[in-house]
Amino acid sequence: MTRLVRDTMELRRYIRMLRKNAISIGFVPTMGALHEGHRSLMRRSFKENDRTIVSVYVNPLQFGPGEDFERYPRDMEKDFTACRAEKADVVFAPPVAQMNPPGRTTTVQVAGVSDDYEGAVRPGHFTGVATIVATLLNLVQPDRAYFGQKDYQQSVVIRRMVRDLAIPVDVVICPIIRDPDGLAMSSRNVYLTPEDRKEALRLPAALIRAEQHVLRGETNCDRLRKLMRAAMRSKRADVRVDYADVVHPETMVPLGSVEGHAVLLAVYRVGKTRLLDNRVVAPPGTAAWVG
Amino acid sequence: MTRLVRDTMELRRYIRMLRKNAISIGFVPTMGALHEGHRSLMRRSFKENDRTIVSVYVNPLQFGPGEDFERYPRDMEKDFTACRAEKADVVFAPPVAQMNPPGRTTTVQVAGVSDDYEGAVRPGHFTGVATIVATLLNLVQPDRAYFGQKDYQQSVVIRRMVRDLAIPVDVVICPIIRDPDGLAMSSRNVYLTPEDRKEALRLPAALIRAEQHVLRGETNCDRLRKLMRAAMRSKRADVRVDYADVVHPETMVPLGSVEGHAVLLAVYRVGKTRLLDNRVVAPPGTAAWVG
Repeated sequence: MTRLVRDTMELRRYIRMLRKNAISIGFVPTMGALHEGHRSLMRRSFKENDRTIVSVYVNPLQFGPGEDFERYPRDMEKDFTACRAEKADVVFAPPVAQMNPPGRTTTVQVAGVSDDYEGAVRPGHFTGVATIVATLLNLVQPDRAYFGQKDYQQSVVIRRMVRDLAIPVDVVICPIIRDPDGLAMSSRNVYLTPEDRKEALRLPAALIRAEQHVLRGETNCDRLRKLMRAAMRSKRADVRVDYADVVHPETMVPLGSVEGHAVLLAVYRVGKTRLLDNRVVAPPGTAAWVG
Repeated sequence: MTRLVRDTMELRRYIRMLRKNAISIGFVPTMGALHEGHRSLMRRSFKENDRTIVSVYVNPLQFGPGEDFERYPRDMEKDFTACRAEKADVVFAPPVAQMNPPGRTTTVQVAGVSDDYEGAVRPGHFTGVATIVATLLNLVQPDRAYFGQKDYQQSVVIRRMVRDLAIPVDVVICPIIRDPDGLAMSSRNVYLTPEDRKEALRLPAALIRAEQHVLRGETNCDRLRKLMRAAMRSKRADVRVDYADVVHPETMVPLGSVEGHAVLLAVYRVGKTRLLDNRVVAPPGTAAWVG
């Protein structure tokens, strides 16, 4: 039986009961509009924990002015049905009034890794993410929390925050789940028209192409950047590359040369929709990436 | 047996064992140089918890450039002896390299209540406090954490942070402990010469005098401010009032009139030493202040 909890005090009581009985907790924080990517996080959590809590909360703090907070896809009934189908134990869907009450003035800021890429395009975004994730982790007190690699920079920000503030949780980053056509799953893909979608496919294709060059021995990051940009060139004026870079997997610093693990990181803008994708790559013969 | 723990991983293991056995934890965070005020926090914690952990850590993040980080009184042996005399269970004294490693970039900022008073005189101070207290709370995972009312604004900042980030801990603010002459105990009192100390006594005297006026029906805060400043006037050029105000106990906003509970808040500078003191007051007949 999947239980819907809206009240933070009710969640606290439930968590206290679990903690008292040494029942392990897995946590999947989401903004709803659940897709196969979220489901893969739940399944990983089921394997590794006694109980799994999925939060569904569209966090206003991480949206900037003029962004899609209002139109962000919301369908609580559908999301709850998806969690029930997966047999999640609890869906935690708190009201904004409880998570972000008036008079709330505390923020968590993760300098450095938050500054560029999404942080530059969306000022304040990662402070909003870090603040709400810290709050949710304090409420849910999970043993493990699951995030998708699709939002790569977010995963770096959260891991850095958890380490710096010694938050007692294991952060687990799970592989990107893709549609059969190769596009990384995202709640925002619903914004795409069929024509947009065809354009969008250049993004995963460009990353695969760059990865193939790395696997064939290319180490020069400037050449990889050019290659990705060339592969994403479009005739449409409203389709463009926000960024396409090769960065260090933990510091997000742009690399000159691929020596060990590196992240191919790109954002492709198709109409009004920004699509994020990435691939962790390494020269042939490098030991596996453990995240 | 009081146990000295320096390593954060060793502390984590100990906490995990306590948590697994549902043993309640009281936490007294300190910067060492322990005095009777700290001891009163420990005694309160002993009463309310199965185990008490005292941290001794001089947090560089909360000192500004030119402040007394280097000369801040440190005597680990004496502090450990004091904790042992009180029968604290654990003294947690981590090295700076573990609490504040290079590459640490996360901060916790509590806007509003941090901005004025100590926050204005010491820019960044409360971000340093909030960041390290959040980190310590995540490491120790206490049921209750004990702070002295002497650092009034700090107690407001910490309570706000704990509420906003939903940190699962009860924050307990304990009364100011004073020397027989009336001066609030502080590790920095050791900086005072006997002559300084005579000057310093004007601070608690001014607060008592203002309180007496409130108890006799004075509600006008401007008159209370003038009264405090007048009571602290000195002939010495290096003795001065940094601030003397009447503020709201939760928002730190200056009040026009004492209607309910209010905080008389003052900092007196004697030579190079800044002395903090405060009193929570209320008009006659007001219900007790519960903090």
